[in-house]
Amino acid sequence: MARFSFNQATAKHWPLEDVVAGCVDAGVPGIGLWREPVQEYGLAKAATLVREAGLAVTSLCRGGFFTADGWRDENRRAIEEAATLGTSVLVLVSGGLPEGSRDVDGARRMVADAIAELAPEAAAAGVTLAIEPLHPMFCSDRCVVATLGQALDIAEQFEPGTVGVVVDAYHVWWDDTVYQQIARAGARIAAYQVADWITPLPEGVLLGRGLPGDGCVELRRLREAVDAAGYTGPVEVEVFNAEVWARPGRAVLDASVAGYLRHVV
Amino acid sequence: MARFSFNQATAKHWPLEDVVAGCVDAGVPGIGLWREPVQEYGLAKAATLVREAGLAVTSLCRGGFFTADGWRDENRRAIEEAATLGTSVLVLVSGGLPEGSRDVDGARRMVADAIAELAPEAAAAGVTLAIEPLHPMFCSDRCVVATLGQALDIAEQFEPGTVGVVVDAYHVWWDDTVYQQIARAGARIAAYQVADWITPLPEGVLLGRGLPGDGCVELRRLREAVDAAGYTGPVEVEVFNAEVWARPGRAVLDASVAGYLRHVV
Repeated sequence: MARFSFNQATAKHWPLEDVVAGCVDAGVPGIGLWREPVQEYGLAKAATLVREAGLAVTSLCRGGFFTADGWRDENRRAIEEAATLGTSVLVLVSGGLPEGSRDVDGARRMVADAIAELAPEAAAAGVTLAIEPLHPMFCSDRCVVATLGQALDIAEQFEPGTVGVVVDAYHVWWDDTVYQQIARAGARIAAYQVADWITPLPEGVLLGRGLPGDGCVELRRLREAVDAAGYTGPVEVEVFNAEVWARPGRAVLDASVAGYLRHVV
Repeated sequence: MARFSFNQATAKHWPLEDVVAGCVDAGVPGIGLWREPVQEYGLAKAATLVREAGLAVTSLCRGGFFTADGWRDENRRAIEEAATLGTSVLVLVSGGLPEGSRDVDGARRMVADAIAELAPEAAAAGVTLAIEPLHPMFCSDRCVVATLGQALDIAEQFEPGTVGVVVDAYHVWWDDTVYQQIARAGARIAAYQVADWITPLPEGVLLGRGLPGDGCVELRRLREAVDAAGYTGPVEVEVFNAEVWARPGRAVLDASVAGYLRHVV
C-alpha cells in the first residue's frame, strides 16, 4: 500500500473530511486533490486537515486550460494552492481548441507558450508542472495534448523538476509507442494514474472510466514500465464514473484499493 | 466534383437504387459501398446497377475484424465482393481486443498475421487491402490499429498495390504526427475519407460524426497533404450520425456535396 493514492474525484460526492478520515482508517498513505472541492472547504483548512491526518498530497488537479481566457491568473493561483497543500505536482490539462477554431497547431503553440511563461513561477514555488496528455477523444474540447510523446516534446524544453508529465493509463494505453515514450520520459514522470478502459462510452465520454481491473488496460505492465523508467512515486487511482460516484465513498475507496492490489501492484 | 464520392453509410437508410439514382442526378461520379446493404440488394445486381449508372465504386467497407472468429472466410468473401463490384479498395477495420483480453500487442500481431495471409488473395483479385486506422476511442472494441503510423508499419511489410492505408480525417486529425505520416504514406494512400469532429460525443461514440464543415477538422489541409503525398484518388464523404440518417437521403447527399465544395476542395 506504500505507493497507493486515492484521487478524491474517484468518490466525487464524498466530503473532503470524510475522504481524509476514510483514507486514514483504510491505511491509505496518499490523496490526490482537486482545486474546486479544496476551495469549497477552504484552502488553508484543507492543507491543515490533510497534514494533521498524515496524508501525503500526491497531486493537485488541475491547472491548464491555456486556450481559455483568464488562464494566467488561474494557473498562478493553482501553483500557489499546490504549494500551500504541500504537493509538488500540479496536473495540467491543456485545454482544447478555442471556441469556433480549427487551428489545432495554433492551440498547441498556445500551450507551450503558456507553460514557458508559468515555468519560472512554478520553479520558485517548488511545484512541478505536470503535463497530462488526455485520450485523443478529448482533443477538441479539453486537451490538445493527446499523446505522451507530444507532452514530452513540450516538457523537454524545460528543466525536469519544473515541467514533467503525467502518465495516466486510461489516456495512453492504446498508443503503440507508449512504452518507448515512457522509457524516454524517465525522470520527467511526475505522476502515474490509473483507471480502466470500459465500453460502451457514455454520452460526453468523460464519465466512462472503470475501476482498476474492470476493463482492458494492462495497468500492471504500464506500472512496471514507469518503474523501469525510474519512477518511484505514488500510484493514484482516479476514476470518473457516474455509477461509481453513486456508491458510498468508503465502498469506492475499498474497491479502488482492492483493484489496485489485484491489478496494479 | 470530379473527385467527390458519396459513401452510402452517410445516408444509411436510403435504399441502394435510390442512392445510385440520386448520385447520377446530382452529378456525383463515385460511390462508396458497404457489404451489408449490397448483400441485401444482391451482389451481382448491385454491381450491374452501379456500372450501368456510370458510377465508380470508390471503396467497399469493410473487411477486417481479424480478432473475431471466422475472419478468414469473411475476408475472402469481402475481397471477392470488391472485385465483383469493380473497386480496387477494400477498407479494413482491424477489430478490437478479443472478448475478455487485455493483450493489445497480441491483437495487433493477429492483425498483421491475418493481412499477411490475405495479401496473396487480394493481389490475385486486383484488390488493395486498405488498412484504416480508427480513432483511438475505438481501440478496444473495433480497431486496435489506432494511428496512421501504426497502419503504415503494417502496410510497409507488403507491396504498395497490395496493402495500403485509408486516411480518414475524422480518425486522424488529432495526431500531431499526422502530416509526417501522410508524407510517409505516399503511394500507400488508397483512400481519403472525410467527416467532421463534433462534440459532445453520443453514447457509444460511433454515431458522433459531423458533415464536412460542421466541426473542427482541417479537412482541406488534410486533403492538400494527401494530394502532396501523391494521392489523386476520390474523396469520400462518410458520416455516421443518427440525426443525419433521419433526413431524406437526397438532402444528405446535397449537404455532403455542399460541405465538400466549401470545406474540402
